[in-house]
Amino acid sequence: MFALNMALRVKIFEVSVGHPLAILNESDARAMGILPHDRVKITHGKSDTTAFVNVSETMVQPGEIGLFEDVSKEIGVKDGDEVTVSILKPPRSIEAIHKKIKGETLSKDEIYAIIEDVVKHRLSDVEMAGFLLAEEFHGMTMEEIEYLTRAMAETGVMIDFDRPVYDKHSIGGVPGNKVTLLIVPIVAAAGLLIPKTSSRAITSPSGTADTMSVLAPVTFTAEELKELVEKVGGAIVWGGGTNIAPADDDLIKIEYALKIDPRSQMLASIMAKKLAVGADCLVIDIPIGPEAKVEDMAEGRKLANQFVELGERLGMRVQCGLTYGGQPVGHAVGPALEAKEALEALQGKGPSSLVEKSTALAGILLEMAGLAPIGGGKDLAKSILERGKALEKMREIIEAQGGDPNVKPEDIPLGEYRITIKAQCDGYVTGVSNMAVNAIARAAGAPVEKGAGVIVYWKRGAKVKKGDPLLEIFAERESKLSEAYSVATRLRPITIEGMLLQRVPSFP
Amino acid sequence: MFALNMALRVKIFEVSVGHPLAILNESDARAMGILPHDRVKITHGKSDTTAFVNVSETMVQPGEIGLFEDVSKEIGVKDGDEVTVSILKPPRSIEAIHKKIKGETLSKDEIYAIIEDVVKHRLSDVEMAGFLLAEEFHGMTMEEIEYLTRAMAETGVMIDFDRPVYDKHSIGGVPGNKVTLLIVPIVAAAGLLIPKTSSRAITSPSGTADTMSVLAPVTFTAEELKELVEKVGGAIVWGGGTNIAPADDDLIKIEYALKIDPRSQMLASIMAKKLAVGADCLVIDIPIGPEAKVEDMAEGRKLANQFVELGERLGMRVQCGLTYGGQPVGHAVGPALEAKEALEALQGKGPSSLVEKSTALAGILLEMAGLAPIGGGKDLAKSILERGKALEKMREIIEAQGGDPNVKPEDIPLGEYRITIKAQCDGYVTGVSNMAVNAIARAAGAPVEKGAGVIVYWKRGAKVKKGDPLLEIFAERESKLSEAYSVATRLRPITIEGMLLQRVPSFP
Repeated sequence: MFALNMALRVKIFEVSVGHPLAILNESDARAMGILPHDRVKITHGKSDTTAFVNVSETMVQPGEIGLFEDVSKEIGVKDGDEVTVSILKPPRSIEAIHKKIKGETLSKDEIYAIIEDVVKHRLSDVEMAGFLLAEEFHGMTMEEIEYLTRAMAETGVMIDFDRPVYDKHSIGGVPGNKVTLLIVPIVAAAGLLIPKTSSRAITSPSGTADTMSVLAPVTFTAEELKELVEKVGGAIVWGGGTNIAPADDDLIKIEYALKIDPRSQMLASIMAKKLAVGADCLVIDIPIGPEAKVEDMAEGRKLANQFVELGERLGMRVQCGLTYGGQPVGHAVGPALEAKEALEALQGKGPSSLVEKSTALAGILLEMAGLAPIGGGKDLAKSILERGKALEKMREIIEAQGGDPNVKPEDIPLGEYRITIKAQCDGYVTGVSNMAVNAIARAAGAPVEKGAGVIVYWKRGAKVKKGDPLLEIFAERESKLSEAYSVATRLRPITIEGMLLQRVPSFP
Repeated sequence: MFALNMALRVKIFEVSVGHPLAILNESDARAMGILPHDRVKITHGKSDTTAFVNVSETMVQPGEIGLFEDVSKEIGVKDGDEVTVSILKPPRSIEAIHKKIKGETLSKDEIYAIIEDVVKHRLSDVEMAGFLLAEEFHGMTMEEIEYLTRAMAETGVMIDFDRPVYDKHSIGGVPGNKVTLLIVPIVAAAGLLIPKTSSRAITSPSGTADTMSVLAPVTFTAEELKELVEKVGGAIVWGGGTNIAPADDDLIKIEYALKIDPRSQMLASIMAKKLAVGADCLVIDIPIGPEAKVEDMAEGRKLANQFVELGERLGMRVQCGLTYGGQPVGHAVGPALEAKEALEALQGKGPSSLVEKSTALAGILLEMAGLAPIGGGKDLAKSILERGKALEKMREIIEAQGGDPNVKPEDIPLGEYRITIKAQCDGYVTGVSNMAVNAIARAAGAPVEKGAGVIVYWKRGAKVKKGDPLLEIFAERESKLSEAYSVATRLRPITIEGMLLQRVPSFP
């Protein structure tokens, strides 16, 4: 209703606050019918931009508009310049978000409008929260998820290879899951293309990008990723540097703040990244366990079917592996410890849980490529590993990414402050807690301090004697070691049958 | 997990961004395990405060922390001072919000924790959005609503009178609803206490506080409100100035951005204000109509029962009046026009829709006070009005609030730019659109320009002749008049039976 324009004098605040913000004097805001959170269009000469409004009685005088760096740089204004300000109709995506909040199904255009506005920072955090919570509460049809996936891929860089592309993804939640460092070289050694983008840890002790960064740089553009893969067949890079499916970065921050993980958004987020690298065949690792993201097999099968269906809609062949997620994969948790264990496994000296899982998942891709008969993929993957071909390929990948191809496991620096926790009685290990292992490794400094982490010596079913080492904590600083030790004492990451669970009263 | 403290040098940004914000260099944030949106505790000498974190590579150097005015003033630091920064466990209210998002029922303590943190600005907009959307999607039990109401009241100023307190509230959504300006003086003239707080318009052409401000100042503290009411029995003040139930201010901004109005929040928000002024008897006006907040009688009865039940839990007697909300109340819409019409009604020259509705609602309060038998309240209210007692009381109230007690309706300045829209054919008026009348009045400049607004000459059922005036628009500026006129032409606020609804093709 208020199409009124106002000419205002710019007052610059030399700082960015993470989103485009303009400050209006209360009287000007009232005169234009503008409320906090509303959007204004700010025009200066031939350039214009959108900003959100804060209203103040003191920070700017009537006739002034306060602009932060994000805005002032975009339209090239300095202190005292005059700009024209008008209230802006909310973008079309807002209406779509309100529809989704009411539980309606969105059209392709509406979903594209939302994702484009996320990428262009035209939505406030509150509006993005509205969209994600509406997804969480109402869900999305598979058609909506398809549009969401395509929109997220197409609003970023898309890569195109002239040969079929293979890829893998792990749902996450299980510590020590360094299978990518085996799968990528096995698959590439078989002559296939596998351009793997990975994330840094948000809440875990080491994301695959953190682990790989111990062996080689991981920050590359999408174009560089393409060159790497065309050269050596595979790469393991940090997705955050590539501008692939960039909407995800902003949405994940909101999900983290609200501790939600809407299924539709999870599916779209994973598949958009695969669509953007042009994946034709994809294997997805779904760990099942009480402390993993997926708690039981029925839920895992349902999720697997959703991935397969979404893949079909996107023209991608998807197979899912439901894997054991009840305890850490291998023994090592933390960037350097995991990189070391992966390198040892490539040398044929890996723990069986890591080797079996990696070759099983790699085998699925080899079968999808027609390189092995159904049921024969894992054997082929194992033979590639055992013949040293995967190690050879990994050294090529490390070299291509700018790391030392001759790195030896024993060269990798580990935290020098260490403490070993020992069994206090004889018995069988009945459980290793993912949650506790994660917490201890993070307390020790992982993933920021790469040498920090945990080695879990014995896992479920192992028979241990009193005094046997159960767990070793590595840290780069003494203060972090003692902190991690106190977390370990409190959380008791490993339980042994026959062990006293609690003593009552505690101090007899 | 990261209890690490860090000593950082303060860099001041001399501006407030509306919430406590601190900027950390990316490397420091990583070292402390801090993510954007996390909270930190900032300590300087003996004072400390909480801030939300933004992470930057350029705005602050490693070892520095950027602080905005909201934060720097609170702990009294200046450029170059050293502060200690540590990551803060999210407040307990966050966990409660996550529970509500999952659909769980909250305890009294959890709801109080949320509202306390809203008032103390310890929650981010995203977290408040999470809470409100969870209310919207999952609803709340009446027990939760009771706690929410009490928490909202108790976190602000509470007033205590030594006599029973009466109050009224209108749900809103209907233009021209100036009944408060009749009800308060009628009830006060009967010797009862009625400390009425009202809101300014957010999306309508005039809130009761806007209308009253034409006759007298409306900004008072809660203590001043008490004095006013103890002196003359009644007052009509702006709630926003009183610090009564202050949580509402921040929550309403988020609701407005998301276009949601969760029922539980609406009940609590209204009743908290009544609880805070110590209301014993309350009448609630629920207008029913296709363009009002409540669309049909069944929905209105449900809402009325919820108010009554919530009132019982709070020790408040509540009666609801379901009223006709299908068209504007009276004829005048806009601050000055409404104040004038109310004053005329107090002089015995009011339109019947306004007089009937006001005396019916006032009558309910008179009956609750035992001043009239059941069914006799309206007659008593009318007699107070007709004998000039309400006008006399209104003049006392205006004088007590600092206005001119001798103000005459014809003294009130109205917008000088006017245009009359006339009937284009003979026939009966079949409808007056609330939505269209609101839009025209706002386009004309209401509520910011007090003289702007609309007079609706004829309402549903009236017989009009071609050329009769239907609607007059008032504006303080010519540009606003022409804007409002174009809105009127587009929206056609009044429909006449027999009128051409559309001509096809438009230009024959």
